[in-house]
Amino acid sequence: MGIVTSSAARSALHDFLAPDAIAVVGASQDPTKRGYKAMVGLVKDGYQGAIYPINPKADQILGVKAYASLAELPGPVDLALICTPAPSVPELLRECGKAGVKGAVILASGFGETGPDGARLEQELLMAAREAGVRVVGPNTSGMFNLHKKVNLLALDKVKPGDIGIVSQSGNMLLSLALEAQHNGQVGFSTYVGPGNQTDIGFDDYLRYLGEDEHTRVATLYVEGFRDGRRFLEVARDVTAVKPVVVYKSGATEMGQKAASSHTGALAGSYAMTVDLLRQAGVSVVQYSDEILPVAEGLGLLQQARGKRVAVLADGGGQATIASDRLAEAGLELAELSDTTRERLAEILLPQASLANPVDVAGSSDTKPSLLAECMAILTEDDNVDSVFLVGMFGGYSIRFAEELLGDEMRGAESMIELSRRTDKPLVIYSLYTPIKPPALRRLHEAGLPVYYSIEHAVRVLAALGERGHYLSACADHEIPPAVTPDTGIQAVFEQARLQQRDLLEPEAKALLRTHGIQVPAETLVRSPADLAGIAAKFGDQALAMKVVSKDILHKSDAGGVKLNLRGEPALIEAYTAIMESCRTHVPDAEIEGVLVTPMARKGVEVIVGVSRDPIFGPVLMFGLGGIFVEVLEDVAFRAIPLSRHDARSMVAQIKARKILSGVRGEAAIDQDALVDLLLKISSLVEAYPELGELDLNPVIAYSDGYAVVDARVIVNSGKADVEVEQ
Amino acid sequence: MGIVTSSAARSALHDFLAPDAIAVVGASQDPTKRGYKAMVGLVKDGYQGAIYPINPKADQILGVKAYASLAELPGPVDLALICTPAPSVPELLRECGKAGVKGAVILASGFGETGPDGARLEQELLMAAREAGVRVVGPNTSGMFNLHKKVNLLALDKVKPGDIGIVSQSGNMLLSLALEAQHNGQVGFSTYVGPGNQTDIGFDDYLRYLGEDEHTRVATLYVEGFRDGRRFLEVARDVTAVKPVVVYKSGATEMGQKAASSHTGALAGSYAMTVDLLRQAGVSVVQYSDEILPVAEGLGLLQQARGKRVAVLADGGGQATIASDRLAEAGLELAELSDTTRERLAEILLPQASLANPVDVAGSSDTKPSLLAECMAILTEDDNVDSVFLVGMFGGYSIRFAEELLGDEMRGAESMIELSRRTDKPLVIYSLYTPIKPPALRRLHEAGLPVYYSIEHAVRVLAALGERGHYLSACADHEIPPAVTPDTGIQAVFEQARLQQRDLLEPEAKALLRTHGIQVPAETLVRSPADLAGIAAKFGDQALAMKVVSKDILHKSDAGGVKLNLRGEPALIEAYTAIMESCRTHVPDAEIEGVLVTPMARKGVEVIVGVSRDPIFGPVLMFGLGGIFVEVLEDVAFRAIPLSRHDARSMVAQIKARKILSGVRGEAAIDQDALVDLLLKISSLVEAYPELGELDLNPVIAYSDGYAVVDARVIVNSGKADVEVEQ
Repeated sequence: MGIVTSSAARSALHDFLAPDAIAVVGASQDPTKRGYKAMVGLVKDGYQGAIYPINPKADQILGVKAYASLAELPGPVDLALICTPAPSVPELLRECGKAGVKGAVILASGFGETGPDGARLEQELLMAAREAGVRVVGPNTSGMFNLHKKVNLLALDKVKPGDIGIVSQSGNMLLSLALEAQHNGQVGFSTYVGPGNQTDIGFDDYLRYLGEDEHTRVATLYVEGFRDGRRFLEVARDVTAVKPVVVYKSGATEMGQKAASSHTGALAGSYAMTVDLLRQAGVSVVQYSDEILPVAEGLGLLQQARGKRVAVLADGGGQATIASDRLAEAGLELAELSDTTRERLAEILLPQASLANPVDVAGSSDTKPSLLAECMAILTEDDNVDSVFLVGMFGGYSIRFAEELLGDEMRGAESMIELSRRTDKPLVIYSLYTPIKPPALRRLHEAGLPVYYSIEHAVRVLAALGERGHYLSACADHEIPPAVTPDTGIQAVFEQARLQQRDLLEPEAKALLRTHGIQVPAETLVRSPADLAGIAAKFGDQALAMKVVSKDILHKSDAGGVKLNLRGEPALIEAYTAIMESCRTHVPDAEIEGVLVTPMARKGVEVIVGVSRDPIFGPVLMFGLGGIFVEVLEDVAFRAIPLSRHDARSMVAQIKARKILSGVRGEAAIDQDALVDLLLKISSLVEAYPELGELDLNPVIAYSDGYAVVDARVIVNSGKADVEVEQ
Repeated sequence: MGIVTSSAARSALHDFLAPDAIAVVGASQDPTKRGYKAMVGLVKDGYQGAIYPINPKADQILGVKAYASLAELPGPVDLALICTPAPSVPELLRECGKAGVKGAVILASGFGETGPDGARLEQELLMAAREAGVRVVGPNTSGMFNLHKKVNLLALDKVKPGDIGIVSQSGNMLLSLALEAQHNGQVGFSTYVGPGNQTDIGFDDYLRYLGEDEHTRVATLYVEGFRDGRRFLEVARDVTAVKPVVVYKSGATEMGQKAASSHTGALAGSYAMTVDLLRQAGVSVVQYSDEILPVAEGLGLLQQARGKRVAVLADGGGQATIASDRLAEAGLELAELSDTTRERLAEILLPQASLANPVDVAGSSDTKPSLLAECMAILTEDDNVDSVFLVGMFGGYSIRFAEELLGDEMRGAESMIELSRRTDKPLVIYSLYTPIKPPALRRLHEAGLPVYYSIEHAVRVLAALGERGHYLSACADHEIPPAVTPDTGIQAVFEQARLQQRDLLEPEAKALLRTHGIQVPAETLVRSPADLAGIAAKFGDQALAMKVVSKDILHKSDAGGVKLNLRGEPALIEAYTAIMESCRTHVPDAEIEGVLVTPMARKGVEVIVGVSRDPIFGPVLMFGLGGIFVEVLEDVAFRAIPLSRHDARSMVAQIKARKILSGVRGEAAIDQDALVDLLLKISSLVEAYPELGELDLNPVIAYSDGYAVVDARVIVNSGKADVEVEQ
């Protein structure tokens, strides 16, 4: 899948992120120093490999023999933790190389994020690392841990080994997740890495490592900025095929982007575009920071859902209503329960129970909470149901009603656990008793059934399970149609434009499109008023449009270079003269090729299709409705090129104003298949012509039968952007 | 303010929601019964008033002397809790009346929410209560508590008396808030009431009670549906002037509304409209259920903010970025710190600290967490700052770095507490250590400075404080302009239309508007083609529009009754003939008054203004941009009539597409003052003419100088709706 095929070889990062021997450069006896903390983390947590504190002034640290320098170590070292200040780092990396160290974690800040001097030092660091053959984590990182190897370089208290891997550009975020996990009581972590400035190793490499790591079931990333977004998407596509990847991307707003860039110096890029591209690669994007851990835990423990149809089981109407609202907002549906299901529920519930979805047991479980587990079993057996959402007070019946209910409540919990192992549908549980962790909820959680604190979080988990299921099941549709074979004539046009350092002329751009089967209305390039008589005769009473063609005139309308609704020879001649005069006035030296004459397009829905080469993500396709939808409402969708059919379809479906495509105010529905086909053709064309820098079809008029590309602009690539992206 | 003036007398609800003697009808010795639970709640919590268990089969219950019936009680009773089944209730209410009971809480379900039979029983209940002079809470309620009176009829464990009052149509929601409060450790409650079916007492009455209740600092409501929305808004306006009112309204989506109506049978109404109207009355509306308690607690404990400018103080860049994103999404701003503030911060922070907002101390506080309190003090003294938001690991320094820091961290907490008492700006604190409640955070919380669990919740609190401050400070602008004096001519037009059982004709509707100073372009009603010559002469080459006028033709365009862009007499005559023919074909018996001829309106921005009489909220004004903005994007704003100038302004500012009003694609900005004036005029006109049922100005063309009402429709009120609303 995709352009860059990731190498089948195992990531080199395993060599030092799961190290068998560690040197702590700058190990210290001063408890306020990181070089002390790291030693504590290793010694206290019982790291089984060799530990080598490096400190010329100490014989031992925390009882471990210390060495004056890396050169004196008695054995091989996989990982060096470098706790010393920024200026010392390049030299230390050279020493690391000599000592055979495979990777170094560099804590110091004071590099690129501080200004030009720091950037120079960072460049020196990178050169030293490359020469020495040492891979670098950081600099400006909070460090790393690998809890299954008992490598706890952060000396974090009370973090459990588990299956959530984390890469976070914020140390506080890691700390926050660790404290939430401690409070949650069940969540554990595999490996954490802070990529810092990503000078050597970037998010793509870390994700590949987590994808391969057998201890990691979910990769969770807090990202301020990607270094090589295109490669990241490539790796993400591979990893999401085998395990969930959760990303929180900061910089959702201009204010946030400004804050982020002052923090890591990373280029944030468009948030909306980044989110679209990550989702295209199967990533589960979370929007709020307090959803990261719930979603990661849910994706790690629960089955993905086959579809969007949720059965809600509640013991109170109010929370069933809240759940319904949140499900609808998340794009999920209430399953239409089968008659059999309703009959089976009616058999075990009181008459006042509501058997429509949401099912409200209405007191039926007050004296027998395990009844909820029975209902859940019935719901999972309904073919119309993709997931089951328990909402209410389970776990608290024995507290709220009578202590004697505890036995039955615990039996209910066991039944739910057993059910979760039997069914292939996810059971998502919200209990209002979660804050005080009663025994039945503790038991559920221990057995791998998370219980959520808020309906809102539980619904985010349901949505993520549904999206992941949808992504994985659309597998066949993820196939990328083959790129077209470039046309030698068109290649020559690009070559000439490049030599002349100009963009394609409109007729050239349209020829490119026509050559590859895209619907562009017929038009005639008129170079002399003498040709207008023939045109007038050909089109008769049909209204025509006339546009100037000149490499020197970018804004045709502003230069008076466009005339519409022309009929008959006199009108054509008048328009021609007016265009020439006006353009010569506006752009005196303009080289004018002539004018394009074309029949006025029928009325339809204006859409736009654009291609740009993003500095982070490479070629990206944009689609949206024209006019104010793009300019005011920013209602557009992005996908990385090349697109699969699934991508193109989801792009059209994603537009908020998609209702307009389905026909409003009595208009016929737009031919969406034709639009999908257009998007796929543009995608394969961009692949075939690396000289194509930017493309702008604005507008395309979409009809109930096909579409018409009315205006086309192609900016020719100087070649630089491509090299950067594909290096 | 407003139409209905709330009585100055103290609410009668105090008599029984703060009762001095309680009868428990259906008191029981069976621990699974509510009649037992309630007795436990009263006895165990130490209720100081008289308790009278009513049970013909028991001598005593939990050691309290029981009585066979209400008739036998030895003293007066304020409140009766009725735990018996639905059919017994009407008779019991009559007995309550005889015993002088002031209010009854009726737990039983089985009334209107179950169907027609239940509805009849509910009607009987209401009649009985009215006759007996007994007010009714419920039926179909989970009950009530008043913790300051030690009346705990729900027998809830571990709820603290405090200052949050709750009215919730969901018992599970109350339970959920109580458990969150238990976990939070600091939040306490004053009175809770479940309004159930609101048969007698509705949300408006309960809110008035909470507004008057001295123990309640914040009124918090979970609402599925209002019974009398207009009266509720009236009460809310009064209460929000003195204390915060927090509302979670369920039914945000169609799916949620369906779920809600099967639960309480209440009419949900449009969610978007309800939210707009609640905000207009100063209510703090929360969107997510897990924000209810954080927002209520924050509004209760913290000062409102004077404005939107937030100073963020962080000890890590990542969370500062998240905070910035959330603040921007909530419509808040990062304050521009003054030079003095930056200098003062620079004096106490390390050189690598970031002094722009968000302020990142970048390690400066690692060895002295109390430094954060010093920074907060400096920030509060900046005139550009309206509120201070502390983000990061405060409270956890002594855990993360060194135990020795605990003393300094506690001193920091004391300084923050002291600062919060000195400054009139709110201090909002998020700590990633909240989940494990370290001593400094416990201390802050005990002293009335809440510490939030997530950045998201903290920002919701900041937004609510800002909105409340904005609402209260716009006090002068809340004044309602006086209603216009109705014009006797127009009244006659209404009267005639009412007699003829028709709506106003377009010229009549426009006359109404013109009479009250609204800008409607001049137009001529033409009754015969002979008049067209004069018209043609008058307008010369100006393009004209022609529209049929007939009470029998509602959809003028569909009937071929509209012709545009007409110039000169022949064109006018042709159009006139065509309109007459087409209309006679489409609506053979139509009574046609003639045609309206008017100059074509200049191009501008289409907006629409509508008035409807909502069955729940009474007369409501709607404003939006025309065409797809209303029809597809549903981008409209609502306000209850009458509007204040503040309401009209905020209405225009609220539209998502407001950018279009400010001028896009090189267009001039729209004259928003003129639109505000139009909205106010429509509002005062609706008040003056109760016969006006619905009004629809679609479109109004808005210009950089004024506007033009191009089409106007007025539906005449049969009078019924008004009576319903004002009864």
